[in-house]
Amino acid sequence: MKITRARLASLRPFERAVVATCRARNLSISQGPVLVALSGGPDSTALAAVMAALRDAAVAGPVLACHVDHQLRAGSAADGAACEDLCRSLAVPLHRVRVDVGGGNLQAAARRARYRALRRVADEAGARVIATGHTRTDQAETVLLRLVRGAGARGLAAIPPRRGRLVRPLIDRSRAEILAYLRDRGLGWCEDPSNATPRFDRNRVRSEVMPLLESLRPGVEASLARAADLLREDERALEALARTLLPRGAEKVSRAVLDGAPLAVRARVVRRLWRDATGSRRSLDAGHVSAVLRLLDRPGPGSVSLPGGRVAAVRRGELRIKTA
Amino acid sequence: MKITRARLASLRPFERAVVATCRARNLSISQGPVLVALSGGPDSTALAAVMAALRDAAVAGPVLACHVDHQLRAGSAADGAACEDLCRSLAVPLHRVRVDVGGGNLQAAARRARYRALRRVADEAGARVIATGHTRTDQAETVLLRLVRGAGARGLAAIPPRRGRLVRPLIDRSRAEILAYLRDRGLGWCEDPSNATPRFDRNRVRSEVMPLLESLRPGVEASLARAADLLREDERALEALARTLLPRGAEKVSRAVLDGAPLAVRARVVRRLWRDATGSRRSLDAGHVSAVLRLLDRPGPGSVSLPGGRVAAVRRGELRIKTA
Repeated sequence: MKITRARLASLRPFERAVVATCRARNLSISQGPVLVALSGGPDSTALAAVMAALRDAAVAGPVLACHVDHQLRAGSAADGAACEDLCRSLAVPLHRVRVDVGGGNLQAAARRARYRALRRVADEAGARVIATGHTRTDQAETVLLRLVRGAGARGLAAIPPRRGRLVRPLIDRSRAEILAYLRDRGLGWCEDPSNATPRFDRNRVRSEVMPLLESLRPGVEASLARAADLLREDERALEALARTLLPRGAEKVSRAVLDGAPLAVRARVVRRLWRDATGSRRSLDAGHVSAVLRLLDRPGPGSVSLPGGRVAAVRRGELRIKTA
Repeated sequence: MKITRARLASLRPFERAVVATCRARNLSISQGPVLVALSGGPDSTALAAVMAALRDAAVAGPVLACHVDHQLRAGSAADGAACEDLCRSLAVPLHRVRVDVGGGNLQAAARRARYRALRRVADEAGARVIATGHTRTDQAETVLLRLVRGAGARGLAAIPPRRGRLVRPLIDRSRAEILAYLRDRGLGWCEDPSNATPRFDRNRVRSEVMPLLESLRPGVEASLARAADLLREDERALEALARTLLPRGAEKVSRAVLDGAPLAVRARVVRRLWRDATGSRRSLDAGHVSAVLRLLDRPGPGSVSLPGGRVAAVRRGELRIKTA
């Protein structure tokens, strides 16, 4: 779809900025139906409104929305009703889905259930991409959360603007801009009461850490988001190098292959072997990675225990990670 | 120098931990005289005491110290006198140097003058390495300072444990450990009154940001220091790749050479061309790097203005950065 100057001129500045993000980051919002993940909070409400505006200006394709009710708190059905009203006013078809969230870490389980439901609705509705309302503010908070939890580049890359079918058109916009846009358009939103409790680390980052950093150095949110972008590209380049040493499906790697590689690449080969062995999406911690690399530096065979009930073993110059 | 178990056993736990850092990080403290940079503050006082202990246990080579008086505040001569007393008690020869700090950014000018004096004294005294008292606490603070100022991996790598002749044997130790060691040995130190003013960002990071992050997630100092270590290795690997595309002294690079490289490497080639052209040690900001890369993506010639009075120009498929 060719986007003309005239079409862009009809948009509000905030909407044009979202178009600029989608172009620069290759978010493919104009190549088929876009499914907006709509919680009813300010970010996703703004996202639905922007996408409807881009559709009306023929800058984006058809737009539909999906509201997932996690049934985790009283009044969650009211959020769905508010989404109904919003979508009616925007002429956006709304799919409402109720999910049962499994046990374990509640936030993680809710997220898994939500994305599963979104993918199913996208498939059924023929949506090419699923757009979520993650903002630059979320990005900066995520960088800080990952940093205090001990992440490297992979974790600090934080929220990818695009991953598979998922796209984040608001990733370069601050929450302040989003609230201004909602006011400008006279749109209301639902408050999630859990955002106000200091029980979650993210809420403390938002209410305490970010304001303190902003007082230290105005514009810190943009700095953190830029770091995420830079480190995501670093991670991509180094992972690609690791991949050349450890082709997909390979279960072992020879010491000779690793010998010439930089430490950053050898470490990623070890992490990938561990992830492949465990099926985990997490990263093996730096201490265990070092232990495996020291194993490789020593002549002869040896082994070291790893988390997830695995063991790294070097035999005949080859490293494998297998069940202990 | 071969370090025996018996020699290590005679050391305090804190001193053994410093030996472990020097080995793991290859800090070469046993291969000739070590010059300790001694301000008289807690970190460098502990460093001088540790190095003297390692010398006495024949784990390190001869130790000497250098105190640089920047003559920037009343009473700075008293710090030098305190260093005299300390070094006499440790049997460490002390060199006292007064420097005149030039204009501009005072902290940066003082640092330049200090390192210049240290290198001169090291040359005269035949010291192989210069040891400075940077701690893990400094490392974590530096990561945060760089992050809020908008750094990528190069900046977030923060304080290198080793750079040329400079080594940092305390880089894995916290300030709390250092104060405990000083108490344990009954050693006093000088307070730098400028450390207490909230005028400097670092002091606010120390007194406000770090305690808040620590309350959010205990152990955050170690997490930040680990991130620096991981990102330093990433930076090293990616810089080495950039270097293969832009050999030392090269003043231009062809579009064809850059075409196949990952974005993270292309960006580093652009930054390196700019640094070579300006002589700056700073990094070209992300916005200008992107502008130069977009220039390369377009067919035909073009140019873009850069900071430092330079211009990036693409002509006949070659990128140069030159005086505007």
